[in-house]
Order: sequence, then structure tokens, then C-alpha cells
Amino acid sequence: MAVPSPERSESVDVEGRQTSEDAIADLAFNAEGLVPAIAQQHDTGEVLMLAWMDAEALRRTIATRKATYWSRSRGEYWVKGETSGHHQAVKSVSIDCDGDTVLLQVEQTGAACHTGTRTCFTGRQIA
Amino acid sequence: MAVPSPERSESVDVEGRQTSEDAIADLAFNAEGLVPAIAQQHDTGEVLMLAWMDAEALRRTIATRKATYWSRSRGEYWVKGETSGHHQAVKSVSIDCDGDTVLLQVEQTGAACHTGTRTCFTGRQIA
Repeated sequence: MAVPSPERSESVDVEGRQTSEDAIADLAFNAEGLVPAIAQQHDTGEVLMLAWMDAEALRRTIATRKATYWSRSRGEYWVKGETSGHHQAVKSVSIDCDGDTVLLQVEQTGAACHTGTRTCFTGRQIA
Repeated sequence: MAVPSPERSESVDVEGRQTSEDAIADLAFNAEGLVPAIAQQHDTGEVLMLAWMDAEALRRTIATRKATYWSRSRGEYWVKGETSGHHQAVKSVSIDCDGDTVLLQVEQTGAACHTGTRTCFTGRQIA
């Protein structure tokens, strides 16, 4: 009887679906190893913010269910709300058809924006 | 009596609000001159897709109210729906707190995704 190889058993679940680790490996990261990640409030649909993730930030986000980004300005991982308390509890993670964008459905505690507005787009309409 | 300079009258409206051209000039484009643009269905809140815009794509989007992106793969402007008929009628344009992301509220005709799914994230949940 064939025994599934460790590689296979790690990357495909019992129903043959691609696991998140496979999906991460297939992502089209940019030259800096990053993809944009959109955070959306799961129930209201508000687009809260866009930040960036490398593969490890996405792994941590999935493992901890706390949105974790790569801060391009600080050059470090950044658990959203670590300082402000304004965490994002992750309900689901999806990727787009080209595998170069991540969409998080989250429960946002407090303001998503460091300026204190609910979303990073609130009050910033230009047209 | 002071006559407003053409520069000023072009960039600030009668109530002194920043015009879209000023806002575009202030955007933090990346090294390729692009910013990510999120298209969201205005009434349901669905995040439809993420694409890229340079300053001119954003100007055309605002002027025509048809979402217009820069295709990185084809190296050309791309009016969404030009080929498929799946246009995005633009209801509003907002920018984020850092001026490096655009959010469009649109009325999407048909499928947003070239694969035929309603959004580019539909059926692509990984966690």
C-alpha cells in the first residue's frame, strides 16, 4: 500500500485541497518579497487599510489569527494593534486570481488608522 | 485686488479644498510610478480586485468615471471592461492616510475577474 510522502501529506489535506502553505509558496511576491494585503471589516465590508506581507508575515497571520504585516518603513514584522491595542482578529484569508494580493476579513478593534479614523480612507475622498 | 494665479485657481476650489490634481501630485508612487488601487462594489462592499495606477491612469479614471488602470504585464493603460464589457463606473475615489493606496467605489458590471468569478477573491480562501 502506498504511503503518502511527507511532502504530500504536509501540503494537501485529506480532501486534496491545497493547504495555506502551498498557497503561500505559489504567491507572486514582488521584488522585495512582498504582496499587498487588504484588511476588510468582515461584517460591514469597510475597507480598513492596505499593508504589506512577506511569506512569514502571512504564515504568522494564519497561525495566530492576528493580522501581522511587514513594515517597510521600520523593516520589521508588525502585529497590528501591538502598540495601539487596535488588533485585527482574522476571520479568513483569501488570495486573488493572480496570487499577488491578499484579502483579510477581520474584526477590527477600535480605529484601523494610526490617525484615529475608523479606516485609513475615512474622510480622504478626492473625487 | 489680488487676482488668483492660474496655478492656484487650478488646484484649489472656491472653498479652498484640495482638488484631485493636488491630491494626485501628493501621492506616494512606488519606484515604478504606481500605486495599488482597490476596487470595491459601492453598495455591497465586496472587494472586487486590486490593480495598479500611475498618475495618468488616476486622472483618466476621475475624468471619465471609468476605472482605468496601468497594466504592468502589457505596459499600457487599461480601461476595465474595454474588452469584456465588464466596466466599473466610478462613484468615488479616496486615498489613504499615507497617500500610497487608492480606493475606488464602483458599480461593477458583470464579473470583476477575468476568470468569470464575481470578484478576484471569490472561491480563493486559503485560511
